[in-house]
Amino acid sequence: MKSESLEQTYRRYLRALNERTFDDLEEFVHDELTYNGQGLTRDAYVAQRREEARQIPDLHYAVDLLLVGGDHVACRIAFDCSPKGEFLGIDVDGRRVSFVEHVFYRFRDGRIEDVWSVIDTDEIREQLSGDQA
Amino acid sequence: MKSESLEQTYRRYLRALNERTFDDLEEFVHDELTYNGQGLTRDAYVAQRREEARQIPDLHYAVDLLLVGGDHVACRIAFDCSPKGEFLGIDVDGRRVSFVEHVFYRFRDGRIEDVWSVIDTDEIREQLSGDQA
Repeated sequence: MKSESLEQTYRRYLRALNERTFDDLEEFVHDELTYNGQGLTRDAYVAQRREEARQIPDLHYAVDLLLVGGDHVACRIAFDCSPKGEFLGIDVDGRRVSFVEHVFYRFRDGRIEDVWSVIDTDEIREQLSGDQA
Repeated sequence: MKSESLEQTYRRYLRALNERTFDDLEEFVHDELTYNGQGLTRDAYVAQRREEARQIPDLHYAVDLLLVGGDHVACRIAFDCSPKGEFLGIDVDGRRVSFVEHVFYRFRDGRIEDVWSVIDTDEIREQLSGDQA
């Protein structure tokens, strides 16, 4: 029951990102959080999400796999989008790329407090190098 | 109950990798599996694990986060090791590096049939570039 509820919360969080309703993120993210071990404020985190959406107008979070256990969520998210300019240190320059994010979250009282994310940047580089269709 | 059992199975799988008891992997992996969408035989998969252990004598899988849901397992695995030569396309050359793998598995009848893995190779590159302690 609790797991179902956390899954629903998490899916609403992704929907807020996809619908660019960034003012709603306060509902899903604590005032302070950690991202890959580094502390930051929700304001800074939300600013990053806004900037990402500006740089990637067609950014869309598509859930591929989703697991919930206790206060943790694990998600494999698929992206198929065209980042402008440099993205994650890679000169994507508007080309369309497909990649995944494997991300874990720890929730407290129904809001995200810790995020651990790995993005398949090597896949992006491979696609842009033309090694792969 | 079922989830507990799958967690135990998975932890025994990692123990087999850590203890280099590769002949036991038949218990944990189907004859054929997919790895990031690519099909391969268990024999080929086990041969890769043997080769990895040869290249990285101090390879050790340390569970940082572990979630089980239905037939799926998600794990954040931490590594702190010294790969010889080139590793994941990076010239590590015996230097010690710390990185993580975020990996999802689908089990069928208690054995792995699909693996989706992302490794934080950018973190390895950063450490080797001296940008980070």
